[in-house]
Amino acid sequence: MSARYETIGQYLLKRLYEEGVAHVFGVPGDYVLGFYDLMLKGPVRHIGTTREDTAAFAADGYARCRGMGALAVTYGVGALNTVNAVAGAYAESSPVVVISGAPGVREQREDPLIHHRFGPFRFQREIFERITCAAVALDDPVIAFRQIDIALAAARRHCKPVYIEIPADRVLAMGYPIPAEPLTAEASDESALAEAVAETVALMAGAVSPMLIAGVELHRRGLQDVLVALVERARLPVAATLTGKSVIGERHPAYLGVYEGAMSSESARYMVEQSDLLLMLGVTLNDIDTGIYTARLDPKRLVRAAQNEVVIHHHRYPRVLLQDFVAALAVAVNARSEAFPVPAAPEPSDFPQPHRPMTIARLVERLNRALSPEMIVVSDVGDCLFAAIELRVHDRSEFLASAFYTSMGFAMPAGLGAQVARPDHRALILVGDGAFQMTGTELSTHARLGLAPIVVVFNNRGYSTERFILDGAFNDIADWRFDRLGEVFGPMQGYDAPDEAAFEQALNGALANRTMPSLINVRLSPEDASEAMRRLAGHLQSRVKGEG
Amino acid sequence: MSARYETIGQYLLKRLYEEGVAHVFGVPGDYVLGFYDLMLKGPVRHIGTTREDTAAFAADGYARCRGMGALAVTYGVGALNTVNAVAGAYAESSPVVVISGAPGVREQREDPLIHHRFGPFRFQREIFERITCAAVALDDPVIAFRQIDIALAAARRHCKPVYIEIPADRVLAMGYPIPAEPLTAEASDESALAEAVAETVALMAGAVSPMLIAGVELHRRGLQDVLVALVERARLPVAATLTGKSVIGERHPAYLGVYEGAMSSESARYMVEQSDLLLMLGVTLNDIDTGIYTARLDPKRLVRAAQNEVVIHHHRYPRVLLQDFVAALAVAVNARSEAFPVPAAPEPSDFPQPHRPMTIARLVERLNRALSPEMIVVSDVGDCLFAAIELRVHDRSEFLASAFYTSMGFAMPAGLGAQVARPDHRALILVGDGAFQMTGTELSTHARLGLAPIVVVFNNRGYSTERFILDGAFNDIADWRFDRLGEVFGPMQGYDAPDEAAFEQALNGALANRTMPSLINVRLSPEDASEAMRRLAGHLQSRVKGEG
Repeated sequence: MSARYETIGQYLLKRLYEEGVAHVFGVPGDYVLGFYDLMLKGPVRHIGTTREDTAAFAADGYARCRGMGALAVTYGVGALNTVNAVAGAYAESSPVVVISGAPGVREQREDPLIHHRFGPFRFQREIFERITCAAVALDDPVIAFRQIDIALAAARRHCKPVYIEIPADRVLAMGYPIPAEPLTAEASDESALAEAVAETVALMAGAVSPMLIAGVELHRRGLQDVLVALVERARLPVAATLTGKSVIGERHPAYLGVYEGAMSSESARYMVEQSDLLLMLGVTLNDIDTGIYTARLDPKRLVRAAQNEVVIHHHRYPRVLLQDFVAALAVAVNARSEAFPVPAAPEPSDFPQPHRPMTIARLVERLNRALSPEMIVVSDVGDCLFAAIELRVHDRSEFLASAFYTSMGFAMPAGLGAQVARPDHRALILVGDGAFQMTGTELSTHARLGLAPIVVVFNNRGYSTERFILDGAFNDIADWRFDRLGEVFGPMQGYDAPDEAAFEQALNGALANRTMPSLINVRLSPEDASEAMRRLAGHLQSRVKGEG
Repeated sequence: MSARYETIGQYLLKRLYEEGVAHVFGVPGDYVLGFYDLMLKGPVRHIGTTREDTAAFAADGYARCRGMGALAVTYGVGALNTVNAVAGAYAESSPVVVISGAPGVREQREDPLIHHRFGPFRFQREIFERITCAAVALDDPVIAFRQIDIALAAARRHCKPVYIEIPADRVLAMGYPIPAEPLTAEASDESALAEAVAETVALMAGAVSPMLIAGVELHRRGLQDVLVALVERARLPVAATLTGKSVIGERHPAYLGVYEGAMSSESARYMVEQSDLLLMLGVTLNDIDTGIYTARLDPKRLVRAAQNEVVIHHHRYPRVLLQDFVAALAVAVNARSEAFPVPAAPEPSDFPQPHRPMTIARLVERLNRALSPEMIVVSDVGDCLFAAIELRVHDRSEFLASAFYTSMGFAMPAGLGAQVARPDHRALILVGDGAFQMTGTELSTHARLGLAPIVVVFNNRGYSTERFILDGAFNDIADWRFDRLGEVFGPMQGYDAPDEAAFEQALNGALANRTMPSLINVRLSPEDASEAMRRLAGHLQSRVKGEG
């Protein structure tokens, strides 16, 4: 895997490239300039962002599309600016490689008061140890190559971020090619696996209305193909969790929509809650995916496969890996031949109605019709996320969101990462006005790179999720004329859409313009909300005072 | 100090107000909404910012003006977004109180997977323990009041940030008024103090050209008055360090300018380096203040008073506090009556020259003439900071910068905090184009609040400090038309200033307009640089490869 003589910087870049990382996001700074200089000389390309946290969000979006992403930043002011975004990648299981420059090892030894320093030099690594699954400092050339291998292997195995600190005087230092010890592969207990599969097959054969809930871990572990094989062989209807949304193509005839307890659509909720056998595969039981714990998941009708175990009713099969269980089940399950239900023909649309103000419900209805197989939807949090539940993307893995960690400001930079990772796709970026004010100017980088995302701003002049929980003047924010941002950093085509006719015109203009970003400023009433938001708000209100 | 019956939230707000914190910056989020609701009902006012890191920078600027500042944010996505700005406040010794909401204590006990969570709940506090001088979680009502007292006392004593985590179900919980144990006051060793002062007085009496270098700690410890008393009694010329800039009013006849080794002006450097007795008071020997260790500070001609000790030549007086030493010296020193040198009459200005492109040198010359006693200068980092060395502010403490930690993006939000703290002042904000792209849209908040800062953008289309160290395409950034930002979030008056005539007109327009922000986009050549930057760059180049 490794050439025998090369520098630590070269080895790190080579290994990233082997892992599929062809682009590194970030902002230069003096402690990382040597590494940047090295990047200019190889195949890994640098993508400059306006801030370091947006570089981390972009790397997260890239990782979700390509299996791994990376950013390179300077010590202190650079790395510490990424802490929230990297914690988000950890919470959301996205393998992001954080490369931080640092003062040279010799310089550190003298313990000087140098700029960007905020405490003992090791404190930065200690902070990142809490938000990554491996954190290494490449101080010692003898073990640096192995540290790099271990960190990248951990990122891949655990689908979590890792932290690699490279001191300025180690970038061009020669490393020592120690033969890599292959990681012991994780393996299932074969007997437990066989028994769990047999029990599940028997339960399915006896069930009247079996169905499947597909979760985010299937996506992260690359199990989309085997999921489809299982679904099609057993003719199982499928719901997804919100964090798992788009793990199966949403135009697949088996797909029912998103299930998240009381927040679900009536139809998805009915199907799931009346089923007498629920196969939950790769589902994380967090508050968002369970609709703030309103999901009705009676263990007596559950088979739940998590990353390392299968739980059936009240008994457990430990040491059964998710990928092994799904693969074995797809082979062992009884083949059935029932047709999937034919989807109802879509109602003829009456959009646009002249002079009718825009609402979230109508916006989603119209966007649903505009979706095409080349689009990837990237949603920010708040009501655009809840509204996006109703969108049906064409192919799998075409919906990205920070749906569990719910960090505002994710979508614009993650959309940048997704488009760099998938140049054959066009991003549809959904973002609220509050989130846009956090990171929306990263659209400048889309424009600089000649990308052509369609940005839809859900503009209700405030933090609408908070408004539904507990309102006060603190939820009001400045009223930006988002559509005029092209004046500042265009090329960009901006549209103001207060009503349906204006939105229709804007959307058609945006769809036709493939040479620059388009932005549609959709003016919504602060009182408007998606159905899911209304259902959620009641549950959240009780938690403000810790009653939840 | 404390009423006997009140809630933990009320007590925290009351104590902040007693410490001079009348404004709390931040972005609401569900885990902190109860605390926000409480703020609406009392005298402490909430100032909404667009992001959480800018709230922390604003609180830092506020703290530098008022002695303490605060921000309130939600758990995870909010607090972790402030890590860089809070680390900066630590490095720069600014007492910022970080208030973070958190899930309720009862909720945390069940260890649920709830949104904004990224690991064990305690990890957030562990991260902040590395960037604050006290970090408390108000889980237990019995000790909550005392924890608050201890944290605020630590912020004041150490001039560093503190972290206060308030779980959602503790905001309205009644606290227990335990009588506060007064902190043992720090005190000097009286004998050591007397001997150190006597030795210093004797050395000063025998010196031919004694002078003083005033550092940042004098500012942080509120020793400006006693500094002036010492300077005027002993008729000592004074230089400031860059981080200490404006600790003495820069139009004071004793003031010589900034000394930082090879980066200094010729005149300041000559005066300092020929002096036979240098009194260094409250100076931190970091890389910036020493001009990357080019300062010539021979111990044989030094008396150096740090926070807790005085060092004369090669011997130390431990346990002598800075404030005690300066106060005693100001009384004991021999009074002299020499006049301070009369400053040379300013040369008649030939600004503007028609059609002459703007340069940094001419920009600073013109800004220097525009400074008035009501202005507070807030500088970002990079070449605008190095250029600002030459600015002479009128009153003390009217120059704010992240001069040691050097975090890009400091100035715009810190300028917001400074103006909220000092409504009688007008901010002159100096910022590079790269830094503006990080946090410049916080100007929207200035506009929303009706503030009227003058923003001068040093626009050379890239990261110019990096360019001088090691250039590459990664230092080029998108070319924003900053002066058009009013289109997006005005009211704001924008000016494009490619040459001197345009700048003159813009500056006069900005000075006259006191109802909204003014922004002047000064177009500079990417090859232009301040003299200090040119001197610094050579020293930094050697460090990229860790040779420094």
